[in-house]
Amino acid sequence: MNIILLEEREIHGGRVVLDDRRAVHIQKVLRATVGDRVRVGLVNGPMGSGVLTAVVKGRPTRVELVVELSEHPAHQPELDIILALPRPIMLRRILGQLAALGIGTLFIIQANRVEKSFWDSSLLEQHEYLEHLRHGLEQAVDTRLPQVQIFKRFKPFAEDFLPRIKDDYRFRILAHPYGTSTLAGYLGPGPGRILLAVGPEGGWVDFEVDRFEAQGFCCCSMGERILKVDTAVVALHARVSAIREMLCR
Amino acid sequence: MNIILLEEREIHGGRVVLDDRRAVHIQKVLRATVGDRVRVGLVNGPMGSGVLTAVVKGRPTRVELVVELSEHPAHQPELDIILALPRPIMLRRILGQLAALGIGTLFIIQANRVEKSFWDSSLLEQHEYLEHLRHGLEQAVDTRLPQVQIFKRFKPFAEDFLPRIKDDYRFRILAHPYGTSTLAGYLGPGPGRILLAVGPEGGWVDFEVDRFEAQGFCCCSMGERILKVDTAVVALHARVSAIREMLCR
Repeated sequence: MNIILLEEREIHGGRVVLDDRRAVHIQKVLRATVGDRVRVGLVNGPMGSGVLTAVVKGRPTRVELVVELSEHPAHQPELDIILALPRPIMLRRILGQLAALGIGTLFIIQANRVEKSFWDSSLLEQHEYLEHLRHGLEQAVDTRLPQVQIFKRFKPFAEDFLPRIKDDYRFRILAHPYGTSTLAGYLGPGPGRILLAVGPEGGWVDFEVDRFEAQGFCCCSMGERILKVDTAVVALHARVSAIREMLCR
Repeated sequence: MNIILLEEREIHGGRVVLDDRRAVHIQKVLRATVGDRVRVGLVNGPMGSGVLTAVVKGRPTRVELVVELSEHPAHQPELDIILALPRPIMLRRILGQLAALGIGTLFIIQANRVEKSFWDSSLLEQHEYLEHLRHGLEQAVDTRLPQVQIFKRFKPFAEDFLPRIKDDYRFRILAHPYGTSTLAGYLGPGPGRILLAVGPEGGWVDFEVDRFEAQGFCCCSMGERILKVDTAVVALHARVSAIREMLCR
């Protein structure tokens, strides 16, 4: 936890009282005492610092902070990701990692090779996935919570929803081991948002590739190595970011 | 398991008999039967295919293959990594991910902010870490096993060992959030190996940074976000690979 995240409703006249894992973290990990300053941020708002004005040990541990929030948060990341629903244990890790790396919106979708049972996961309930996203922000010192949108059926997503949003994106990438383009060959300089689609273990089926291509997606490969989805998502995010940074220098 | 990995000693006159998890995988996941062809490779050797000549169900499941190994393995990756020992659960994942992404050698070292208890892990025994590296190769369809070298003390590594190997590398990168260089600013075109050092949670201490800089390492940052080690290692590997591919086109 490299930043203590607060909600608007928790702040009253510049004061915050915490009695959950954040209070424990401030006492046990940061070992902060009255008068110390800790890094705080408002979810989807500015960052700043909080000065400890009271510490009550015991159960629950309780701390009081006076906060000052005046730093603008990071810019909105230019990358949004479409992810075929992975198995829950992997999704949990990916949520934290993507929030830490920084993305705008995560579209979690059905695909042919997604196991049906994955949709039963409680992780898809808002209070569950938000927790993992927040952990990622706390790690990376950011306040901008990625949006999450869930589509339990592929065709309505690809045929109704994608056509409505596709023009928001200058670059549309379908990660595909058999893609003939490379990310560096496809991406270009200048402003514009990027939409990246990452398939399930086993990959996209031909029908899905066709539907994405019909919406102007370019099939890009990272090379011949077959990666697990959690490795691939992080590697793709990093590659797209590095290439864009080089092109936009 | 996208390739069945074999050891030299298992092959007798072009024939292999398997009765472990590889045999189970061939029967249960690939559902291969006599006459079918599966992808095989020799650890640190060529790749090819194997034709099933016998299947014996039961315990243990047993399969017999006639193998033909004529494809050259992938080139040796140009990247070696120095990693401050992470906690065992994280190291396990990193071993598989790095083998899947492809590296030459992994140097696992002590650093000031490495918890002493991490050194008690059985993962540091060869038969344990080799297993995770093999899983990575099986995932990525590669046969080239990364080398692993372990250094339980920082000073002998940095002051005795590094000076002996540093000239094998054209680029020496110390990943450091406060680095003033960027990977794209430091890396250049043309051939040459790369050595990348990734610190523990909490980062390198000043003494360690000094020692690496004394051996010609350049402090490079990926930006302001603080990442967990497993995320950072994969992202750094991907960024270095993407930048080098662009510069060497």
